[in-house]
Amino acid sequence: MKEINGGICAAKGFKAAGAHCGIRKNPGKKDLSLIVSEVPCTAAAVYTTNLVKGAPIIVDKEHLKNGVAQAIICNSGIANTCNANGVEVANAMADLVEKYAGIKADDVVVASTGVIGEPLNLEPIEAGLPGLVKALSEDGSLDACHGIMTTDTVEKQVAVEFEIGGVPCRIGGIAKGSGMIHPNMATMLVFITSDVKISSAMLQKALSADIKNTFNMLSVDGDTSTNDTVAVLANGLAGNAEITEDGEDFAEFMKALNSVNVALSRKIAADGEGATKLLECKVSGAASEEIAKVSAKSVITSSLVKSAFFGEDANWGRVLCALGYSGADLDPDTIDLTFSSAAGSVLVCKNGAGVEFSEELAAKVLHEDEILIDVSVGDGPFTATAWGCDLTYEYVKINGEYRT
Amino acid sequence: MKEINGGICAAKGFKAAGAHCGIRKNPGKKDLSLIVSEVPCTAAAVYTTNLVKGAPIIVDKEHLKNGVAQAIICNSGIANTCNANGVEVANAMADLVEKYAGIKADDVVVASTGVIGEPLNLEPIEAGLPGLVKALSEDGSLDACHGIMTTDTVEKQVAVEFEIGGVPCRIGGIAKGSGMIHPNMATMLVFITSDVKISSAMLQKALSADIKNTFNMLSVDGDTSTNDTVAVLANGLAGNAEITEDGEDFAEFMKALNSVNVALSRKIAADGEGATKLLECKVSGAASEEIAKVSAKSVITSSLVKSAFFGEDANWGRVLCALGYSGADLDPDTIDLTFSSAAGSVLVCKNGAGVEFSEELAAKVLHEDEILIDVSVGDGPFTATAWGCDLTYEYVKINGEYRT
Repeated sequence: MKEINGGICAAKGFKAAGAHCGIRKNPGKKDLSLIVSEVPCTAAAVYTTNLVKGAPIIVDKEHLKNGVAQAIICNSGIANTCNANGVEVANAMADLVEKYAGIKADDVVVASTGVIGEPLNLEPIEAGLPGLVKALSEDGSLDACHGIMTTDTVEKQVAVEFEIGGVPCRIGGIAKGSGMIHPNMATMLVFITSDVKISSAMLQKALSADIKNTFNMLSVDGDTSTNDTVAVLANGLAGNAEITEDGEDFAEFMKALNSVNVALSRKIAADGEGATKLLECKVSGAASEEIAKVSAKSVITSSLVKSAFFGEDANWGRVLCALGYSGADLDPDTIDLTFSSAAGSVLVCKNGAGVEFSEELAAKVLHEDEILIDVSVGDGPFTATAWGCDLTYEYVKINGEYRT
Repeated sequence: MKEINGGICAAKGFKAAGAHCGIRKNPGKKDLSLIVSEVPCTAAAVYTTNLVKGAPIIVDKEHLKNGVAQAIICNSGIANTCNANGVEVANAMADLVEKYAGIKADDVVVASTGVIGEPLNLEPIEAGLPGLVKALSEDGSLDACHGIMTTDTVEKQVAVEFEIGGVPCRIGGIAKGSGMIHPNMATMLVFITSDVKISSAMLQKALSADIKNTFNMLSVDGDTSTNDTVAVLANGLAGNAEITEDGEDFAEFMKALNSVNVALSRKIAADGEGATKLLECKVSGAASEEIAKVSAKSVITSSLVKSAFFGEDANWGRVLCALGYSGADLDPDTIDLTFSSAAGSVLVCKNGAGVEFSEELAAKVLHEDEILIDVSVGDGPFTATAWGCDLTYEYVKINGEYRT
């Protein structure tokens, strides 16, 4: 498996485009994206567990019942959530794709991201769609990526090439997400395409299994969004023998999907609103997978841990504190804790009690952009990794002024 | 019932003192407090549910097994948590109170608050105690309050006078807490004294019931501390007939205890680290008490909600979002939401969808120091109130630099 260029268009037969259509006031900010496949795809998706759901999710659940899709339309600026006419508008977006791109409305995945509770106007979308369809291109991944960004500061795209039964296959994806990120069974907006031939049942199985170790292990601010969606389209153009059951081929696909999702999770965490550092918490030695996951996620979610890393302060007691209240069944007296980065590694706590360490080395380790919080909780066989970021002045600034 | 002065010394027979003994470097910051009763008291306490517990909590659980206590000693600066010799040091603190104040070590409640994982040196405590005992006074509440403060910016004390069976009684308390505040079955440090005569069983019953509606409904940053403790001492000097069972007298006591705990909860929330605003979320119309509580607490805990209020931005969608992911069984379509303050009231959402409102009025309402987030979730009979604060640059600053 190797990383390749092309993002959401890296897989055979996919084109994308992104443009400014006028949902946002700033003409320099793209606010509408379209992704299409030459041919119908098997499709799978996972959604937010928030009871307050974006209207597009209600429409997507309907459209994906048959496991088939061919296009994704997504606007940024307005979330189309908590609007009385939300479902009507989301359906109309799919109808417009049928009208202008000739793809059946029922095969369109719809997504929206932005302010909750403001009405989404269809006019700019209808006005912008013909141009967007015309702009569809195999080089369009970056534009599509820009069209779905909100407070994101960098585009998040990735693609890999790998083999199934000797046949070269590709998976690529784009993601947006910077705040309101604390996925629970689903996540922010992530669109993934592949040219692998795979049944929709196996595609859903792969996605549902993988997000538990990737997007669901990610937290920027502890807030689970109303519009989280991960959608995967696989069009089969790679030419592999169709994957319809567990086995070596499915395992290869899972491995490639996981590498795409881990890469996007890390990109989202590193671009957390206001973030200056990517924090990765690895918990090992746990007695169960659940204990490892709950522990890692609790550390990465703690405002106090996050603030300490922003200050580059080796205040390890806060990590112990976050492990202690995580709800995981842990014995504090068997916890070891090490902070690592490109600058080195420093053991700060052994068997639940502080050890002497070089503050000078700790300062160097914590000055880096990517920090590993390495927690050993005992001698169990389970591990888990969670991703997050530091909490900074900028996060507060961005979110104090977001709407007005 | 009326509010009176005197704080932790308002009840008959209690004296207190606070002083700088040298645990902290800044000689202007008091770091050791002592509270004593003339006579032994019935006593009750609740503690953090964090598995990583401060050593003093282990000692207190032992000391309060017989339901009797006569003194409280508390230092700030170092939490005596995650130290190999923590329990030994906490026991030694109680022994020093016996040595210098003549109160049995077994009747001493010990508490510590500050940095986790740094060793607590006994020398300054032993050096400071004789002077602290000498300084004990009925006017000592404010000094004791200062001795337990860490990042708190204002002292938090309150006292009330009420009657039980025609006999005037008093309850008073002091609290510290500003960050790492998200109590779960217990809370930050709160010490309460009363001259009511009440059995230790009924005192524990009253405390355990009341904190569910007061300190457990409070969140500054979602982090449950390792050292949370609420301890109540009742010395019986008011002269009322001893409360040994449910009934009118117990109800009066509960009412007074609740008013003290609500007042302290509000003070802690308003003084949340970096906070500029007290946020109160009242959820009504819930189908169960649990639903009301979980909903109110989720709103008050959301970093996005907290940031929006700092920015005085009526971004009500974030409140809906926090309700939706709270885990409470809610129907989003029956949620109404109003923001209120001394400047007025503005309805922003009706039946789960936005309504038109005056941005000018909203700006005025949100400009105040105390904001009520008034949520109606349906036509059920249950309500709950939670307290929190806004998330500000200062929170990040304080917690990025806390240890170093």
